[in-house]
Amino acid sequence: MFESEQMKNRAIPTAKDKTLFTPGPLTTSLNVKQAMLRDAGSWHFEFNEIVAQIREDLLDLAGVAKADGYTTVLMQGSGSFGVESVIGSVVPPDGKLLIVANGAYGDRMVKMAERLRLRHRVLRFPENVTPDPSEIDRLLLEDPEVSDVAGVHCETSTGIENPITEIGRVVKARGKIYIVDAMSSFGALPIPLKNSGIDYLISSANKCIEGVPGFSFVIARRDALVATEGSARSLSLDLLAQLKGFETNGQFRFTPPTHSILAFEQAMRELDDEGGITARCERYRRIHKVLVSGMRRMGFRTYLPEEVQSCIITSFYYPSDSKFSFPEFYQKLSEKGFIIYPGKISQADLFRIGSIGRIFESDIRSLLAAIQETVLEMELCLEEHSFEPSLAAK
Amino acid sequence: MFESEQMKNRAIPTAKDKTLFTPGPLTTSLNVKQAMLRDAGSWHFEFNEIVAQIREDLLDLAGVAKADGYTTVLMQGSGSFGVESVIGSVVPPDGKLLIVANGAYGDRMVKMAERLRLRHRVLRFPENVTPDPSEIDRLLLEDPEVSDVAGVHCETSTGIENPITEIGRVVKARGKIYIVDAMSSFGALPIPLKNSGIDYLISSANKCIEGVPGFSFVIARRDALVATEGSARSLSLDLLAQLKGFETNGQFRFTPPTHSILAFEQAMRELDDEGGITARCERYRRIHKVLVSGMRRMGFRTYLPEEVQSCIITSFYYPSDSKFSFPEFYQKLSEKGFIIYPGKISQADLFRIGSIGRIFESDIRSLLAAIQETVLEMELCLEEHSFEPSLAAK
Repeated sequence: MFESEQMKNRAIPTAKDKTLFTPGPLTTSLNVKQAMLRDAGSWHFEFNEIVAQIREDLLDLAGVAKADGYTTVLMQGSGSFGVESVIGSVVPPDGKLLIVANGAYGDRMVKMAERLRLRHRVLRFPENVTPDPSEIDRLLLEDPEVSDVAGVHCETSTGIENPITEIGRVVKARGKIYIVDAMSSFGALPIPLKNSGIDYLISSANKCIEGVPGFSFVIARRDALVATEGSARSLSLDLLAQLKGFETNGQFRFTPPTHSILAFEQAMRELDDEGGITARCERYRRIHKVLVSGMRRMGFRTYLPEEVQSCIITSFYYPSDSKFSFPEFYQKLSEKGFIIYPGKISQADLFRIGSIGRIFESDIRSLLAAIQETVLEMELCLEEHSFEPSLAAK
Repeated sequence: MFESEQMKNRAIPTAKDKTLFTPGPLTTSLNVKQAMLRDAGSWHFEFNEIVAQIREDLLDLAGVAKADGYTTVLMQGSGSFGVESVIGSVVPPDGKLLIVANGAYGDRMVKMAERLRLRHRVLRFPENVTPDPSEIDRLLLEDPEVSDVAGVHCETSTGIENPITEIGRVVKARGKIYIVDAMSSFGALPIPLKNSGIDYLISSANKCIEGVPGFSFVIARRDALVATEGSARSLSLDLLAQLKGFETNGQFRFTPPTHSILAFEQAMRELDDEGGITARCERYRRIHKVLVSGMRRMGFRTYLPEEVQSCIITSFYYPSDSKFSFPEFYQKLSEKGFIIYPGKISQADLFRIGSIGRIFESDIRSLLAAIQETVLEMELCLEEHSFEPSLAAK
């Protein structure tokens, strides 16, 4: 049928996995992966108990409780499937969605709204500037038809951290529903759900909780979600129907990624073992600092101003040396066992390096050494020692 | 944060996994699961090569070639996400979808069409009767507005095998687009794509190819798919955009379930090693026969007439004995290490037993022994020896 020998010889691991310095899928712990060495029945009560526990633990992690009126919905597919399940399910037929965008993931929400034929408007900010809450307030005052406001916490396309709490205050003061894409931040950056007035927070299994891809999750104000009855524009991505499934028989309506869920259970345990969000945030911040200071020491320049840069992922300018080619740089790092990430904005030529996942300071130091070697191999001329004293002192 | 000790003590496997006699997720081989002990970068060329190879191998498995104009699209999420991605992406805005239904999965397509606000009509047949191609033909003649026809190959809700080739002849003679949900049959039952005139065939990673859940796939006539430009009603489930992603840079547009894909690569290899569809079909048929003959010997009755029963999954009537309780029966089998499946139709009280996955005759014989023991424990009175001589002779 197909070339059996060719298949057999292909992709058999001959070395250890390359380390991922990406926004996800990430390098995960061996225990997380080993949790997938089981086959669970998706209809079976033992599996459903795990799903129920995960849904509860996610509320704990978010610092909210069932008693406060919050609930968790897991949704099959990638993080974007989760975002679309929220946007497509909760904006009422006669509603209007305001999307606050300063990067590719905000823009993706706009594409979703267009595709779903939702009434919407967009408030755009430059990719290296955080949204201004007062401008959002002005727009909400000017356009009372807006029913829902959606924004991104950490824009993975640049690494910028947006002021979701300040924006939330404005959104809630005007009585709107507030949707936050916290894909690459939840689990690492503290998010005060209640204080920020977030009605729907979306994140994914394969980001800062350090699970493997396969599903996203939505932490929602249950009352708000229940009130959306009849709004869903998709069957598969129907957020309320998914909640009802969990609440009636504990099951996913359609086949869940059972193995990803078992891995996630283990990942949640390891997050707790590490010391929760505080400790994880501390680790990510530390390796981000080591990364930035090392890169600057070599002469690389960061894209974002320090005060809006998250510790999740960092964008670096391409060196100005005309000998620099990103594909070659990428390839040489890959050969050394390190996978970095391309840029995702149109304004500037950037590449990105993630500092999340099961990676440690030693991994960053190895990466920095490999980058230094690659710079030498490519005979790149960088402005050396442009690092900031504040970081060098660390 | 959350109860660490409680988490640690929960769900740690103390025994081997229960064997799954379900329609999926299935019991898979250890090698398939071990293929997930890796972290692959979703943007990385090495991973993309695996995706490209899987897309090609699926065409081989389907007995069609790129040169014949076929292509494969992988789609994140469960099988239903794949079905919705087809229905929602390929039926033109002014089109009309005819859904041929004789079970829950046909009905699910109807719900999708309703939710997507697609013009559609439904041709329903009883759950134990296969659709009559001549009735479909009559309807297509009567309603020329129908642009697309969708049906299910093996209705997992009962186990009935529908005549997709005969239906395809009628659909193509009338010049309509033909969509087949082959979720639980592809990889085990031979499907003549070209002869059946199938434009879109949908199946899932965790069915007869014996991978793990996380994505579905669509084998499509490329010309037909390319002609649907502008029809997609969702961004995440946009089938054509997904194809364009694979064709432009080899990537999924949104994060793929990398581990499920690595498992699938191994599952495809094992399907080839077993001897392809022919050998797998033979194994499933054999264990289905052992199952049915053993169940009949105990006095259980099958729901479907022999001539329309597939070897994928079998529906059995609840015993008439009033002492029978399905939850108790299920629980007792679970305690013995066997997971069966509830019924999914409204007409009759049934339970289902799947005969797909990495299971063998010995597993079925163990299941039969456990069922016999459970019947005795529950003191159920069944009409014994009602088995058919033809099967007993096997």
